Amino acid sequence: MSKGKAFSAQLRFNEQGLIPAIAQDWKTGEVLMLAWMNSESVELSVQEGRAVYWSRSRAALWRKGEESGHVQHLKEMRMDCDADALLIMVEQVGGIACHTGRRSCFYQKLDNGNWEVTGPVIKPADEIYRKD
Amino acid sequence: MSKGKAFSAQLRFNEQGLIPAIAQDWKTGEVLMLAWMNSESVELSVQEGRAVYWSRSRAALWRKGEESGHVQHLKEMRMDCDADALLIMVEQVGGIACHTGRRSCFYQKLDNGNWEVTGPVIKPADEIYRKD
Repeated sequence: MSKGKAFSAQLRFNEQGLIPAIAQDWKTGEVLMLAWMNSESVELSVQEGRAVYWSRSRAALWRKGEESGHVQHLKEMRMDCDADALLIMVEQVGGIACHTGRRSCFYQKLDNGNWEVTGPVIKPADEIYRKD
Repeated sequence: MSKGKAFSAQLRFNEQGLIPAIAQDWKTGEVLMLAWMNSESVELSVQEGRAVYWSRSRAALWRKGEESGHVQHLKEMRMDCDADALLIMVEQVGGIACHTGRRSCFYQKLDNGNWEVTGPVIKPADEIYRKD
């Protein structure tokens, strides 16, 4: 997309050059995860039509699904009123966004002061990430 | 809630002592906004049953709706797999989360490389925020 630079230049990245991106299932509306993007990954997400994040732990571009196959096809990108947060609507391949094998990363729910695990493991992590 | 400290102690706050919190409409699933909380505001949100954020610009607690009346009643709180992001399900009083008078802060949508404004202004900002 030739206009990529123009649109990402309007975003306000933090002091680390990052912006939070909320991934939401484009059909169910379920919030799947929150991850971070830098300018390059924002542009790549649009160019490639898939969610490309910035992995803070690996300090590298992270094409969601590159290991797991759980790619997120980009359907829509929105920014908020302050231009410092993104919302992306995605089609979640495999129906699994979380590295724990669950549909959403937000599977721990506060219940009477305790975090309770909810949401089934659709596929165990050791089946998602092969070690060969 | 007496167990407040226990649950918030499990969260991973960033170097500024903050954690991003996504507010989602508990009925429609619409993502309304992303804001930040510190440990105290997380606990207050649960204790008071309403979203209490940390305003980075004002460096102060921000009881959502304290000026606008657009309070967010807390229905559910979730944390993600890394314990470094929150998702709160809220009942949005007035149906307006954004200071621009729109339902959601994410009203700017990327369209062919340009950010297009979507979503009607339900109530003009100058009617929301009285200057008397």
